[in-house]
Amino acid sequence: MRSFELKRVHILRVDQGKEVLSEILRACEESGIKAAIIIGLGLLSRSRIAFFDTETQSYRYMDLEEPMELASLIGNVSMKDGKPFAHIHVVLGNERRTSAGHLIEGYVSGTAEIKIFELEGELVRDIVSGGLVLLNV
Amino acid sequence: MRSFELKRVHILRVDQGKEVLSEILRACEESGIKAAIIIGLGLLSRSRIAFFDTETQSYRYMDLEEPMELASLIGNVSMKDGKPFAHIHVVLGNERRTSAGHLIEGYVSGTAEIKIFELEGELVRDIVSGGLVLLNV
Amino acid sequence: MRSFELKRVHILRVDQGKEVLSEILRACEESGIKAAIIIGLGLLSRSRIAFFDTETQSYRYMDLEEPMELASLIGNVSMKDGKPFAHIHVVLGNERRTSAGHLIEGYVSGTAEIKIFELEGELVRDIVSGGLVLLNV
Repeated sequence: MRSFELKRVHILRVDQGKEVLSEILRACEESGIKAAIIIGLGLLSRSRIAFFDTETQSYRYMDLEEPMELASLIGNVSMKDGKPFAHIHVVLGNERRTSAGHLIEGYVSGTAEIKIFELEGELVRDIVSGGLVLLNV
Repeated sequence: MRSFELKRVHILRVDQGKEVLSEILRACEESGIKAAIIIGLGLLSRSRIAFFDTETQSYRYMDLEEPMELASLIGNVSMKDGKPFAHIHVVLGNERRTSAGHLIEGYVSGTAEIKIFELEGELVRDIVSGGLVLLNV
Repeated sequence: MRSFELKRVHILRVDQGKEVLSEILRACEESGIKAAIIIGLGLLSRSRIAFFDTETQSYRYMDLEEPMELASLIGNVSMKDGKPFAHIHVVLGNERRTSAGHLIEGYVSGTAEIKIFELEGELVRDIVSGGLVLLNV
């Protein structure tokens, strides 16, 4: 475990048609954010989520080709190989289904409202283990 | 994107029978909170969630007339037309189903534990677009 | 409702095979954390979640004996009977199912990344009501 001071809180609006994961990364790059806790909600028109398989050390993918509420988005931004990296999990829902997993990409429909709790210093992801690169905390 | 300083963190307990969305708003009005990030958990006896349809620019509703754990509550409080407005998404679950969407109303069973990260200044929701009113950040 | 100052933010990595709830509690005990808001994500190999039944005033349990992404973990740490107590809800998902409820135990596969927003002072859980012990806020 490692302790950080909270620096600032950023509110990011991601607009219709934009991809939420790349917009979070772009905002962090532009603002020099090197450690952050991410929370969000919104609506996605289509998404790809994934499930890590520790046996094959790779992700299995699931495509959701329909509008779904982005009921929960939780994650963090760390520095991996010298640039910001976002690790984000989501829960998506509509009348027909509820799906939850690791976010690969999600295209915004309507809006997404992302909160970025920026931490002082740097959160580094460089511990290679079992096909993943873990947080160095 | 806009940046804020964190002011304080409030912990709100919502008791049996109370409606969680209106209790969050009431707490914000009483404490003069004009910008906040909301996180919570609890148990609901019955709830109405919704899914925004960008084609008709309106919500489709889903009523959940059974007790469900409030597994996740994520949202924000902003100022809309001069008064606090709560935008809240939830994930609800029991043995039979898991549902996730935009919270319209949820009646507390047992307890709900809401965390309000109050930000300095004002978060304003006044950008009208596609049937929604977006955050001005 | 009670208001707190944010003290620090801790990032806790829980490794393969460890139980996430007990690791959160251990970290809080070791660091003297007496009030905290918890957020997290990760991957679990097997978990037990529960649903509170207000009529019998007891939990019904559900065992998930398969790897599932820990898509959301939301909760708090308070002091109950003089020691840290974690109240945590989760949303779990894979291709076959999405489940959400009150976390009893969850064994980490790969990694879990837990964020602990430590608050100044003490959050106390001592109001006995309907089979639950509620937050004193």
